[in-house]
This record gives sequence, structure tokens and C-alpha cells, in this order.
Amino acid sequence: MITLNIVGLIVEYNPLHNGHAYHFREAKRRAGADAAVAVMSGDFLQRGEPALVNKWARTEMALQLGIDLVLELPVSYAVQPAEWFAHGAAALLDATGVVSHLCFGSESGELPVLSELAALLASESGALQAALAEELATGASYPRAFAAAAARAFAAAGGLGGDVDAARLLLEQPNNSLGLHYLIALRRLQSGITPLTLQRQGAGYRDERPRDASIASATAVRRLITGGGSLDAAAAYLPPFTLEILQREFAAGRGPMHWDRFSQPLFSRLLAAAPEELAGQLEMNEGLEYRIRKVLPKLEQATVTELVGLLKTKRYTHTKLQRTLLHTLLGHSQQMGSREILSAGPHYLRVLGFNERGQQLLKQMKKTAKLPVITRAADLSHPQLDADIRASAVYANAMPKRTGFDLFRDYRQAPIRL
Amino acid sequence: MITLNIVGLIVEYNPLHNGHAYHFREAKRRAGADAAVAVMSGDFLQRGEPALVNKWARTEMALQLGIDLVLELPVSYAVQPAEWFAHGAAALLDATGVVSHLCFGSESGELPVLSELAALLASESGALQAALAEELATGASYPRAFAAAAARAFAAAGGLGGDVDAARLLLEQPNNSLGLHYLIALRRLQSGITPLTLQRQGAGYRDERPRDASIASATAVRRLITGGGSLDAAAAYLPPFTLEILQREFAAGRGPMHWDRFSQPLFSRLLAAAPEELAGQLEMNEGLEYRIRKVLPKLEQATVTELVGLLKTKRYTHTKLQRTLLHTLLGHSQQMGSREILSAGPHYLRVLGFNERGQQLLKQMKKTAKLPVITRAADLSHPQLDADIRASAVYANAMPKRTGFDLFRDYRQAPIRL
Repeated sequence: MITLNIVGLIVEYNPLHNGHAYHFREAKRRAGADAAVAVMSGDFLQRGEPALVNKWARTEMALQLGIDLVLELPVSYAVQPAEWFAHGAAALLDATGVVSHLCFGSESGELPVLSELAALLASESGALQAALAEELATGASYPRAFAAAAARAFAAAGGLGGDVDAARLLLEQPNNSLGLHYLIALRRLQSGITPLTLQRQGAGYRDERPRDASIASATAVRRLITGGGSLDAAAAYLPPFTLEILQREFAAGRGPMHWDRFSQPLFSRLLAAAPEELAGQLEMNEGLEYRIRKVLPKLEQATVTELVGLLKTKRYTHTKLQRTLLHTLLGHSQQMGSREILSAGPHYLRVLGFNERGQQLLKQMKKTAKLPVITRAADLSHPQLDADIRASAVYANAMPKRTGFDLFRDYRQAPIRL
Repeated sequence: MITLNIVGLIVEYNPLHNGHAYHFREAKRRAGADAAVAVMSGDFLQRGEPALVNKWARTEMALQLGIDLVLELPVSYAVQPAEWFAHGAAALLDATGVVSHLCFGSESGELPVLSELAALLASESGALQAALAEELATGASYPRAFAAAAARAFAAAGGLGGDVDAARLLLEQPNNSLGLHYLIALRRLQSGITPLTLQRQGAGYRDERPRDASIASATAVRRLITGGGSLDAAAAYLPPFTLEILQREFAAGRGPMHWDRFSQPLFSRLLAAAPEELAGQLEMNEGLEYRIRKVLPKLEQATVTELVGLLKTKRYTHTKLQRTLLHTLLGHSQQMGSREILSAGPHYLRVLGFNERGQQLLKQMKKTAKLPVITRAADLSHPQLDADIRASAVYANAMPKRTGFDLFRDYRQAPIRL
């Protein structure tokens, strides 16, 4: 029996651009991998935003790139702070039983420091939690407070020569932080998966404007598309297949999707719900429900963008506000995001698409997988899967051209095959 | 001191047409009235539908017609079965302390039989309830079961010469039934208001096509407007001021409003809510929440019209389904429609508009009114008023051109003055 290397990637592909293509090739090379498995978020993303096009179109992009098997990260993990996003995604890769490596991008590009930090934080959570509470009490946002607290814990333990500032700067970079959480998750899962990291090339995660001839961040690409309204402006940064898929989706009225397309349903919900009801939604805490109530009558255009702008404070990051509003739109309860429920991990491996090699992997997974592998929404009845189906229906409901097919495509669509 | 006759009308004016103008003039004449007060539903109506244009535009129509004072029927009563609709509206007229007559339209046009029935039903509710339970058990809709049960109770007591069929036919006509409930309400309120009825002229309530040169039902008028998309087709049935106001509202993007404009927010809510949550909405009972869940994936166009069509059975009338969906859209809980809360009646007299004579009435009401008179939404803090404000915000949120002003016009708009 020959052991093959299979590299796992955790992606959003919103949309899949030249930077992603570079990462994919490098990841395969570095892992010496024969195949690649991607865990991809569905129609809503980690920063609390709708994807530009739906998960089926983005699965096609992944398969065109050369990914062999695409699995859906349940929305319960996809729209979560880094800690849970990472936990869900790493657990899925681990549950396949076939993935040998996880390769993630990071600003630092160096594994040793992140690994040391992960070792410390995975075990010493008491000191970290105490430091975190102190940092939060200063009014800092959660990501900033976490970076500061983790840096303090790390420096106290002698990491980076005890240099708190160096550790904090490292962790304030979002992909370093996400990577750290992948490493912590792999440790907690006692996973045999080997982590690898690649330095991100050419563009910062959140750069709003391209700064290289062919590589731009997904944020910059989306801005070119939704800002100018034309795909041509973004063409230089996208593989031809992405361009083609986007063109087809837009022409069919399934995109481009962005938050303001959800203004009507979101506001309808915010306006109709009593504050107690809003308070029951995930991440809605510290009286944010009353702040929303107070801010609503000040709106001029009544768009989500305007609402987030009015709600923004030092404490409530853009991302946190968007996620909270998204949970409200999707009907995610506080309970759905409870530690007990989330730490149990995903309950299924949902296949969105595969090619021939992917089909062989699926065959192998019949023996190795630690979770049921499902290829159709009707295969399983589970609240976690129900949340995925509902999220996709709410997403499709806001498309320029709404159809019943798109609303419940989860029940009707077989995995995409290439 | 001279006692003046003031006639009260209970209206929706959706939109105000020539038949309403006839009723107004006749009501004033029959009551020998010096002034007219209208209790008008806000943006949503008794049959569970959005009004064609908002309450402010319809208040203008009422004032142009010659109504002196327009009061808003709280949405808690406006979107309810006949019994509670009538109770809320009659209670408001009674609470003004100035209204001497209530004049309602009916198919029969004769008061004595309806009054006898009211006298019987207001006191003998035991026999009626038993008969009602029996009729409902046959699978009949509530209105049909009520008509049959009331007819049996009435005939048993010797009314209409004991002719059950005659009594049932009388009560199956919707305006007779509504009128009966006004009469019951006035009795229960021990109101001094004198009831009058006028036979409806020229057009049945629900006629879909006009059958007279200048009188058409509101349903027929709306169909001409939303079906053909043009106001010209409906012009012959409308006073010139209605036409002008509709033209202005449509041009400003505040109409025409109809259920399908709410498809996106309603579906978003239906898709995101768990069945337990849906079950907590007013009028959502007998497992209707599961029926909705089952029917959703069968949709083709995903419009409210299509959904109601798929949900329709002998038991669930069109009206009942529309109201239930509206309660879900507006976040109306079961508790909001409880007998304890509704039997307490409205908690305020909300002024939507008035003319000079109306201003004198308001002056007089400072002494006579049994409830606080409010002219701005900010004048009072009460859950019932909050529901009105939220309903209007959800309504405005679905307008062709959404603006923050329209969403919270309740806070910004002084009563309309003519």
C-alpha cells in the first residue's frame, strides 16, 4: 500500500483569483501532494458577508483550478470568529481521514513561532483568559484584545525573547491569527495532519486596491466588480474560468451579491422584532439590540452599509457587526453558537463537488471518514445541516432574479462534477 | 349648549372611491350629522393585505372627501377577524366621547334583524360557542362556521321565524357579519352611540369587475390599477382627488403596494425561522407552520401570491392565510392577539389628520375623550403604539423607493391638515 500525500486547503474563493491559484500550486508542491481537498464556506463568509456568487458557482471555480474534492464548511462555523471558524474547518479536514497536510497562508510565512504560540495557548488557557478579560475591559475589540492577551501570555513564557510588542504585531495580522487558530485546533483534535504555511504573495488580505500586475486581494477584486459594475476591470486578476463563471452567474441574475441586496429583508426583520427577540440572536450582546433600535430612525438610505456605518464603534468592529446582523437575518440563536455545541464540531462531510481523483478520495473515505459523507441535502436530518439549507435559501431569496429552484437548490443539486 | 350630531365611519379607503363618497354623504344625511369622524386602518388591512398607498395618503383622501377627523385603528385590531376588528373600531369611536352615530354599510341594509341577533349573541354566548365548536369540527372555515352557528342560535330563539337558512345566508355576507359585530361591540361597551346601516350600492364588496358606470368595489379598482399597471383604467370609479393622490404617490415610489412587494422579506423570515418560532406568531395554529415548511420547496416563482395559493384549503381561507403571513412579517406574537389584551381595547386615539371642524372636535375631546389623544408617535410609549410604528416601517421598507424618512415617518409626520 502506497501512502499518498493529500493537502487540505481552507478557502472562501470569493471569487477565486490569481493569488489563490498561486497558493494552490505552492501548497501542492510544498506538501508533495497528489491531490487537494478544499473546505469551502457556503454562501456566507467569515467576515459576516454574503459571497459574490453562490457556493455552486464557487465550487466550479475550485474544480477548474484543480481542487479534487470540495467540502462545505457548515454555516455554524463559516460565520464565526477565527477560533470557531478554524476549529470547524480543521475538524472537517481531519474527519476525512485522508488529508495529510494543511497548508494555510500567513503574513509571516514562518511556522515555528506560530507553533510555539499554539502549544502554549492550547494548554495554558487560564492565563490567557485572564489577560483577555483585562484587555477587553479597556474597550478594545475582541481580535485586538486577543492579540494583546496572547502576546502577553507568550512573552511571559519567554517566547520571541519576551518581546510583547513583536508578538502582538505578529498576531494582529489576520492570517497569522487565523493560522494560529488552525494550529490550536489541530492540537486539540490530536490530529495527525501536518501544518504548513506559505507567505501571502503580492497583496494584503484587506488591500482595497490591487498592487501587483496580476495579484490582487479578493477584497480589491470585489470592489472592482461591484464598484465599477463591470467584470472587465477585474479580469487581469482572475483566471479565465473565474471570469467566465462570474459572467454566466451575473447574466442569469444570481449575482453579483452584496450586503445591500439584503437591506430589505434585514430591515424588515430588525423592524418587526422586539428587542428581546433580537437579544436572542447570536453575537447580539452588550445591549447592541438597543443600539440598533436607537440608530434605525436616523437612517437616510436604509441600506445595510449605512446601518453598519452608524453602528460602528471602537468596540464593535465592522466584521463583528456584519456577523451579528447576518445571524439576525439567518435566525441564528445564541444557543447555536454556544461552546458546547460548537466544540462538538461538524456532524457531516457535505460534498459540493469533485473530479475523478476526488471520486477516488470519496471511495477511500468510505473507510476512513469519521463523519457521514453526504452528497445531497436530503441524506441527513440534522439542525446543523438545516441551518446550511436555510442560509442558502435566504441567500437565493435576495438574488436579482429569485426563483424557487435557487431557493431550495440544496435539495435539487447533485455535487458538481468535472 | 347645543348638542351636535357627529357620525362615525369605520373605513379602509383602499383606495377611496365613488362608492365611499356615496356612503359618506348618505351617512351624514341619515345621521343629520354636522361632522364626521373616521376610524381608518393604517398600512395593513383586515383581510391581511397591505394598503395600495400608505395611511398618510389615504388620510388626505379622507379629508378631501370631507371627513373632519381621521383616527388610526391600531394594527392590533386592524388586522384581525371581524370580531376584534369591530371591537377595536367601535371602542375608538366610543372613546372620542363626541360621536353620536355609527353608520356602516351592509348587504341587507336593515337594522332590526341584525340588532336582534346582536342582542341575542351579546348575552347568550354559551350556546353560540357550543354550536361554533360543532361547525368548526366539520372542517368549515371560521367565518362560515360562525355564520352557521349564529344562525342556528338565532333560529332556535325564534329569530327570522326560526328559518335557519335565511339567517345563515344573511350572516354569510361579509358586511352583514361585520355590522353584526359592530352592534355586539356597542352593546358590550354599553355605548351611547346610535347605529345606522346603509345598503351597499352598486357593487358587492368583493366584486372583481365593476358593474356600474361610476361605482366599483375597492377590490375591482385595485385590480384595474395593479393588473393593467395604469390609473387611467380606474379613473371613472374614483373622485379626482384620489386619482391625483395616487398619481403623486406612485410617482414618488411609495406605491402601488401589494403583497408581492413583500415576497423578499416575508420569505426571508419564513426561511430563517425555526418552526417553533413560526408557531409563536399570531393566528399560526393547527400545524400551519409545518404546512408552510412543506410547501416552500415546491415554489416556482417564490411570490406571496403563489405561496397563498399553495397553502389554500377549505379550512384555511385566503384571508386567514394572508393575515397569518402578515403577522409573521410584522412579528405579531400569539400573546398580542390574546383575548385579555384585545378585550381591553385600544389605549390611545391616534390622530392622522383633521380639518378646521376636526380641530374643534379635538378641542372638545380634551374634555370628553376616554383615552389619551396623541398627534405624534413620540407622545406615548405603549406596546400597542409600538406595533403601529413597526408595521408602518415594515410597510415603507417594501416601497419601490425606500427612504429612511418613510421608514420612520410616524416619528416625523405631524397630522395632515386641510
